[in-house]
Amino acid sequence: MNIEQILKSLPLFKNLPDTIIRNLADGAAAQKYNKGKVLFIHGEAARSYYLLRSGWIKLFRETLDGTQAVIDILHAGSIFGDSALFDQDTYPYSAEVVEAAEIIALPLGQLKQAIETDHGLALAMLRATAEKRQQQDSEIEHRSVQSAPQRIGCFILRLVHKDSSGPVTVHLPYDKTLVAARLGMQPETFSRALSKLRHETGIHVRGASIEIKSIDQLSRYSCSACSSSFPCKTLHAAG
Amino acid sequence: MNIEQILKSLPLFKNLPDTIIRNLADGAAAQKYNKGKVLFIHGEAARSYYLLRSGWIKLFRETLDGTQAVIDILHAGSIFGDSALFDQDTYPYSAEVVEAAEIIALPLGQLKQAIETDHGLALAMLRATAEKRQQQDSEIEHRSVQSAPQRIGCFILRLVHKDSSGPVTVHLPYDKTLVAARLGMQPETFSRALSKLRHETGIHVRGASIEIKSIDQLSRYSCSACSSSFPCKTLHAAG
Repeated sequence: MNIEQILKSLPLFKNLPDTIIRNLADGAAAQKYNKGKVLFIHGEAARSYYLLRSGWIKLFRETLDGTQAVIDILHAGSIFGDSALFDQDTYPYSAEVVEAAEIIALPLGQLKQAIETDHGLALAMLRATAEKRQQQDSEIEHRSVQSAPQRIGCFILRLVHKDSSGPVTVHLPYDKTLVAARLGMQPETFSRALSKLRHETGIHVRGASIEIKSIDQLSRYSCSACSSSFPCKTLHAAG
Repeated sequence: MNIEQILKSLPLFKNLPDTIIRNLADGAAAQKYNKGKVLFIHGEAARSYYLLRSGWIKLFRETLDGTQAVIDILHAGSIFGDSALFDQDTYPYSAEVVEAAEIIALPLGQLKQAIETDHGLALAMLRATAEKRQQQDSEIEHRSVQSAPQRIGCFILRLVHKDSSGPVTVHLPYDKTLVAARLGMQPETFSRALSKLRHETGIHVRGASIEIKSIDQLSRYSCSACSSSFPCKTLHAAG
């Protein structure tokens, strides 16, 4: 697929007229990056937004005293950096490659122009942003009321297919240190909480594999401190 | 002011043509409510969205085991319930009056139609939603890296006028139990954290009044665990 075809395959852009797709793709460039590459820094002037084709990206900010706060971990298909449009054209977070990634950089100015010209795109952006806002509400809810073991249980349940019922094995999509950071936990808190979760719900953890004997038991334990229940309608991916 | 004039005075609606304003206001009704009134419940079918003219509103969800998670506390000028548009026309949270409030209920269907018709309104909604998303990113950041006393310090700093420098007195906008809930803390955690904050930064707390001897000391303490600094560009109000 060339870049125009890739853009047209995205839910956000799928209904756009070809002329606008061509404009969006003009000046776009695909590139591969290794783990550790920092694409941009919080506060930097933004010229591009990005489409993640494969790999994983960490969005984060650094506090004045040097601690890193992870805002999100993005999976293939995610668009990022576009928020700069609403923050005086500066990036509101930093972005780092955490698993070797294939990324398409696209000119931000053309996206801005397309949103101002095409009503359908403005509506699609609005829907996508509102959906993200709902996910963040759930995130804030979880951080208010769920215990650390329940938060890990919730993360694991999101890896389970919604139609699953019997015993099932899932795989952590990235390493445990990153899962801890994604959930806003120190590594030691994460280890302790995972032990407790194992004890309470009978899950087995072998490296990155997690065997769930009873989804019902895991969801009873984790979703009791949530306003939603398994299968979750707000939080799908492990991103 | 009649309802059309009130709508036109809102940043979200200010550039709308009169015909659309008239449509939005058609069927709107202003009403006063006492503390404790529940306007709608999470999951309920949505027919109205709301404009808060005065008083305070709490948005929250209840977990399956009955704990309440506060999503936001809204001040005068806030619009709420409109997120139902992006959640299959059901409210994604419950709303309760926490200080006697004057509220205008507006028909949701007409807002939906206006967004679909008017490109300027879709863009204004997109900007407002994106701004809210940034605030939520900061909220998630704070809950990852700030200690409880730092979170309270941050809340207090948001009550301080950005040009202030010397000693200043601010007033909590609503009672401490609600401030605790807004910050995702149990009342006991809040009490302990407020004591620690007093000890560390020399603030004086007398009921709802807080005397800040040195904004610099308070912001050095609170903002060191944040990617932003005083005056804060993302988080303005205490909402």
